[in-house]
Amino acid sequence: MLAFKKIEYEERVQKVKRVMEKRGIEVLLITDPSNINYVTGYDAISYYVPQGVILALEIEEPIAIIRFMDRHCAIETTWMSEEHIIAYPDKYLWEPKQLHVMNFIGDVLTEKGLQNKRIGLEYDAYYFNAHWKNKLLEALPNAQFLDATKLVSWVRAEKTKTELEYMQVAARIVEKTMRNAIRKIDVGIRETDVAAGIYHDLIEGTDAFGGEYPALAAIMPTGDRTAGAHFSWTTEGKYQNNQPVYIEISGCYKRYHAPLARTVFIGEPPKQLVETTKIVIESLNIALATIKPGVTCEEVERVWQKEINKYGLEKESRLGYAVGIGYPPSWSEDTAYFRPGDQTVLKQNMTFHMMPGMWLDGYGVAITETLRVTGKGCETITQFPRELFIK
Amino acid sequence: MLAFKKIEYEERVQKVKRVMEKRGIEVLLITDPSNINYVTGYDAISYYVPQGVILALEIEEPIAIIRFMDRHCAIETTWMSEEHIIAYPDKYLWEPKQLHVMNFIGDVLTEKGLQNKRIGLEYDAYYFNAHWKNKLLEALPNAQFLDATKLVSWVRAEKTKTELEYMQVAARIVEKTMRNAIRKIDVGIRETDVAAGIYHDLIEGTDAFGGEYPALAAIMPTGDRTAGAHFSWTTEGKYQNNQPVYIEISGCYKRYHAPLARTVFIGEPPKQLVETTKIVIESLNIALATIKPGVTCEEVERVWQKEINKYGLEKESRLGYAVGIGYPPSWSEDTAYFRPGDQTVLKQNMTFHMMPGMWLDGYGVAITETLRVTGKGCETITQFPRELFIK
Repeated sequence: MLAFKKIEYEERVQKVKRVMEKRGIEVLLITDPSNINYVTGYDAISYYVPQGVILALEIEEPIAIIRFMDRHCAIETTWMSEEHIIAYPDKYLWEPKQLHVMNFIGDVLTEKGLQNKRIGLEYDAYYFNAHWKNKLLEALPNAQFLDATKLVSWVRAEKTKTELEYMQVAARIVEKTMRNAIRKIDVGIRETDVAAGIYHDLIEGTDAFGGEYPALAAIMPTGDRTAGAHFSWTTEGKYQNNQPVYIEISGCYKRYHAPLARTVFIGEPPKQLVETTKIVIESLNIALATIKPGVTCEEVERVWQKEINKYGLEKESRLGYAVGIGYPPSWSEDTAYFRPGDQTVLKQNMTFHMMPGMWLDGYGVAITETLRVTGKGCETITQFPRELFIK
Repeated sequence: MLAFKKIEYEERVQKVKRVMEKRGIEVLLITDPSNINYVTGYDAISYYVPQGVILALEIEEPIAIIRFMDRHCAIETTWMSEEHIIAYPDKYLWEPKQLHVMNFIGDVLTEKGLQNKRIGLEYDAYYFNAHWKNKLLEALPNAQFLDATKLVSWVRAEKTKTELEYMQVAARIVEKTMRNAIRKIDVGIRETDVAAGIYHDLIEGTDAFGGEYPALAAIMPTGDRTAGAHFSWTTEGKYQNNQPVYIEISGCYKRYHAPLARTVFIGEPPKQLVETTKIVIESLNIALATIKPGVTCEEVERVWQKEINKYGLEKESRLGYAVGIGYPPSWSEDTAYFRPGDQTVLKQNMTFHMMPGMWLDGYGVAITETLRVTGKGCETITQFPRELFIK
């Protein structure tokens, strides 16, 4: 049931350990579910409770610390030997004033003789809150703690052949889903019915590959709501004439994502929307053509920004972000971004969601692609017509 | 577009402020998306970036601090006046070493003259990580910080009429979904096809009410995997003869949840499974009969545990938890639990997911109900036959 061959996981661990060595981190506590998945394969819907993976320079295999009822999930989805899966009972949960899971993790580290080490923590991860940090610091008074936020996330940047194959599957799933959704949108159709179809298709997958649940809910505002960036559907609304609709969704396979957004107009689109869409697509194409190994992320954004500025438009928000493994609440790798100041140098097989969404006064337009940096340029992983869809 | 009348939100704010006063908290920074939704109505898929709501004893309305591109979402879904919705630009994001959203929030508090106050923080919330806390403490060197984890969550415990109506809608949605899923499960059917149907139905909702995305992915292991508590479906698997399947899902309406789990067996169920199911159902019924205002949470668990102990069974994990509003990654209110040591006294209109899931050696059984404490006892909000479903 492993998503990758054991050797691929072992190589990942080696890569992470090399970075740890360089940064003087002897022990790393990974709590971000995407990073946990990357290093161990662990995949279960258990990230709502504290859990962690310990990577120590002096111990070969990672050690997963998991809630007791999830032990079987860890045995089945990770590559490590069973004694490297350590389960804590429920009494360590939800009692901030008593023993906490972080006390349990502290005890495991102490048992392994790692209590005085230089320990890296993911301070800025989704699943490492202020309370957990306090508890861990209390549990290990002699350790030295370092910020290892995104250490693993950065190792994930360049994708292997198999990872790219999974993203291709995710792309086929999202393309099919987008096609059906656009077909279905029409005057009088309930927004929930289109949303239900989207979820159905994302999870049904293709004939060959079933889909998984994406890290983020479907973004699909209509009408005025397209001026807000992160609306889902409404429970009461029906599509009406003379409304824009935009849809941002992602296929997911083996936790790898391929996001895609398109804009639809029901009826005769206003000139301004047609114009904006044209500018967005042209500038997107120019930005895509800029991407190649050696170029920095901020350069890509600068080219895009310059292009839309010509037409009097401006984009305040980032143009895109690294993408791959994801768990709620995000499919972003939260490392490299196409935005001012990001001097990340592009390398082959980095993957991004280029997100030229424009949220303007009263409406929004988004036409996006998931892409891979190739040896000489870039190719989109998602394949879908770049146009304003008229219904 | 408000989910509740303005007065209901105002009453919520008053309730929260009364607790703040009692606990000597002059300013509360709310970052948990469920608590934000409860107090303001805010509903958008934007919780993957830092955001917060400030409640100050000396300021009547809450102040929402939201990413710029989500400002329109806040204007549309919250009840406050527009000047109480303050948007920060993208430059405050993803730069842990420079200005952070928490610096922006610090500036807003300073502008309002609140920089020296006693400020409550949700240290143990999903969306308040160790880094954010550090940044906020740096930004407000003269403030005094107090732990206000779950302060708002506890105010949410007793539901109003409208809240209960929404949970009823969620229940109708989950019942329909469960019925269709059980009908569909059969030898040779892909797990993804059943999962796709589940997601479709949860979001399609009923004829009268569309559904929303639940806070948690569908839990639906089959075969040996039922021994792990939090598996979703597999992308390759087909249902086979002689396999148990359990399904834990929730309807969602206006962000209110009504979770439900049932166990299915394909083929002739083994004696042990039939026996365990019988014990689980009987003990569940007895536990439900124990619930009434004045009884404590631990008493309910004790009755259940005593009952299953008679048959040589034991449940290590909690028997249930308070339920209501939810965003990924959880629909639990994370306040009261049916478990040893929880001395919460039950009150009318508290709502729980009673979760007698047993994860045993090689298989698991779960038959659960969402319930409301009534004036004299309890009633289940979910209405679904309590039995082992044989296919």
